[in-house]
Amino acid sequence: MATMHDVAKKAGVSIATVSAVINGGVNVSEKLTKRVQDAIRDVGYRPNIVARSLKTGGTKTLVCIVPGIINPIYAEIAQAIEVFANAKGYAVFLCNAQEECKLQRKYLHLARSMQVAGGIIIPAAEQDVNVEQLEMDLGAPLVVVDRAPLETTVDSVVVDNFQAAERAVSLLINLGHRRIGAVASYPLSTTSLQRIAGYEAAMDKAGLSTEGLVRQNCSNVDRAKSAVYDLMRSDNRPTALFATYEHAGMGVVQGLNSLGLSYPKDVSFITFDGNAWADALHPSITRIRQPTENMGREAVRLVLERIESKTELSVRRLVLETEFILKDSCAAYIAGKEADPS
Amino acid sequence: MATMHDVAKKAGVSIATVSAVINGGVNVSEKLTKRVQDAIRDVGYRPNIVARSLKTGGTKTLVCIVPGIINPIYAEIAQAIEVFANAKGYAVFLCNAQEECKLQRKYLHLARSMQVAGGIIIPAAEQDVNVEQLEMDLGAPLVVVDRAPLETTVDSVVVDNFQAAERAVSLLINLGHRRIGAVASYPLSTTSLQRIAGYEAAMDKAGLSTEGLVRQNCSNVDRAKSAVYDLMRSDNRPTALFATYEHAGMGVVQGLNSLGLSYPKDVSFITFDGNAWADALHPSITRIRQPTENMGREAVRLVLERIESKTELSVRRLVLETEFILKDSCAAYIAGKEADPS
Repeated sequence: MATMHDVAKKAGVSIATVSAVINGGVNVSEKLTKRVQDAIRDVGYRPNIVARSLKTGGTKTLVCIVPGIINPIYAEIAQAIEVFANAKGYAVFLCNAQEECKLQRKYLHLARSMQVAGGIIIPAAEQDVNVEQLEMDLGAPLVVVDRAPLETTVDSVVVDNFQAAERAVSLLINLGHRRIGAVASYPLSTTSLQRIAGYEAAMDKAGLSTEGLVRQNCSNVDRAKSAVYDLMRSDNRPTALFATYEHAGMGVVQGLNSLGLSYPKDVSFITFDGNAWADALHPSITRIRQPTENMGREAVRLVLERIESKTELSVRRLVLETEFILKDSCAAYIAGKEADPS
Repeated sequence: MATMHDVAKKAGVSIATVSAVINGGVNVSEKLTKRVQDAIRDVGYRPNIVARSLKTGGTKTLVCIVPGIINPIYAEIAQAIEVFANAKGYAVFLCNAQEECKLQRKYLHLARSMQVAGGIIIPAAEQDVNVEQLEMDLGAPLVVVDRAPLETTVDSVVVDNFQAAERAVSLLINLGHRRIGAVASYPLSTTSLQRIAGYEAAMDKAGLSTEGLVRQNCSNVDRAKSAVYDLMRSDNRPTALFATYEHAGMGVVQGLNSLGLSYPKDVSFITFDGNAWADALHPSITRIRQPTENMGREAVRLVLERIESKTELSVRRLVLETEFILKDSCAAYIAGKEADPS
């Protein structure tokens, strides 16, 4: 098992510097921090967070950090975390990092200074997110939910975003659609990337091009709506749309409404999420439902197991099933019947 | 100005007991606590929370306690609080009290032990909520948002729920509706009570009876849906519905859908809230929009003013304007054309 010495040697720094980075790295330069983080990854070192949090005492509190509380999916997961943690006697402080890594770090350090027993995080969208560092910043066991990198030494609870997206897009392809547009969130979000990858895999398998059909950065309803305008007015107008999350899905509905188009007549449509409204619409929306309650329950279970375990546990990665809810927003493609909003 | 001595004398207890209650009251019996609280109200005593929080130091953190994070209105308000507090250099810990007074108190005490500089709360629904006690539990300046009693010595930010409800119901009456049903939340929630009072005032002014037309305790979408079934299958079937909050509004939509009824043809319909979905529906929903961003901004402003003020400020109660958004869910009543779902 790799030690701090191995990390120091690999990074060419002192043990004190490695220790400083592991303990939150407030007084270490960004450049040096990066070098130590890389070395930690390279040698596969994992600081014994549990031993440390036992030493520092710790309270019966957890911190839960989400990137944005107005995304109903995150609110649902946070609600489940609160309920299950509370049932185990733990209070939960919820922090809203607004997709800002700097703010996220501030909250991790604040939670550390409050000696929380552990944390659960849906990380802010970031290139190559370093969840090991997030756990070191917290100084207590951390479980990553939803946006977890594939390779990590930190516990995580995710859904199979790739497979769910591939399945949804394959359904549209099987209905005869050839030009299928994707309306997606931040390109730096792990989940958005995986969903777009699933979309592309399905298209690729069917020999279909995705050129000019993907709109990213639809980080709120209005942006998603604009993306729909843009797609539906392009030369390569799609006959079906795939929305990768809640606000993208709502943007598609509003965008089609504004253009005077209807689904499934003019455009077929599938979205991730939309639990609160997809069934209330007429026609109702075919969608991928994430098991938010289970995600919260399992995240609490994993973090409490690590907090309360006397021995070091191996890394756990739980991949939960999504539910594909077939409703009325998809129809077979009919040549010559394409919508024309122009 | 009333003093602790006045409170002790009125309650017939020692100064030490009064002090214990003011400081969170953990070791005082419920009966004694109640007696001291009543005396505090009777003599109009207000502990100098600011002086105390200055003495204890305090951090650049606020606590924000909401009764349920999956109500999008609370998520929107919490989001605004986070954004505006953060812009002023304050971190916000969000707590989800799940409509449980006991859990709410636990969070107030935890926040106190963390020495937060102040707090913002949407209190759990409770008979005769004692917000002065909530501030004493926190031991730092507190601002009450949304569910604030009319008479209080604590700062608050609310909307005119009575007037907004009265206006909405009057519109339905002016369209010729005589049997107007109300689908409402917890009867113990201040806002729900004020909205129902506005509904009743409008009905009363028009000489209309509300007997058998009010359904309370619709604390989630499914319960609201059941209430709609119940109302629409009753002998006194309404021709219009008024939903007092987000999940009641969604429950009305789903309930009407399930019964095979449509709005505004069979039933006219107005709801509070529904910002995320009311416009996406076909027909779109006439609704009362609360100024959630302003509510959050003003709550932050009030609490920071009190934290940073060198002198005792007078009590502030801000009543913000709601917006009445006229859409397509209401139509004129036509005699003999009532819906019949049975």
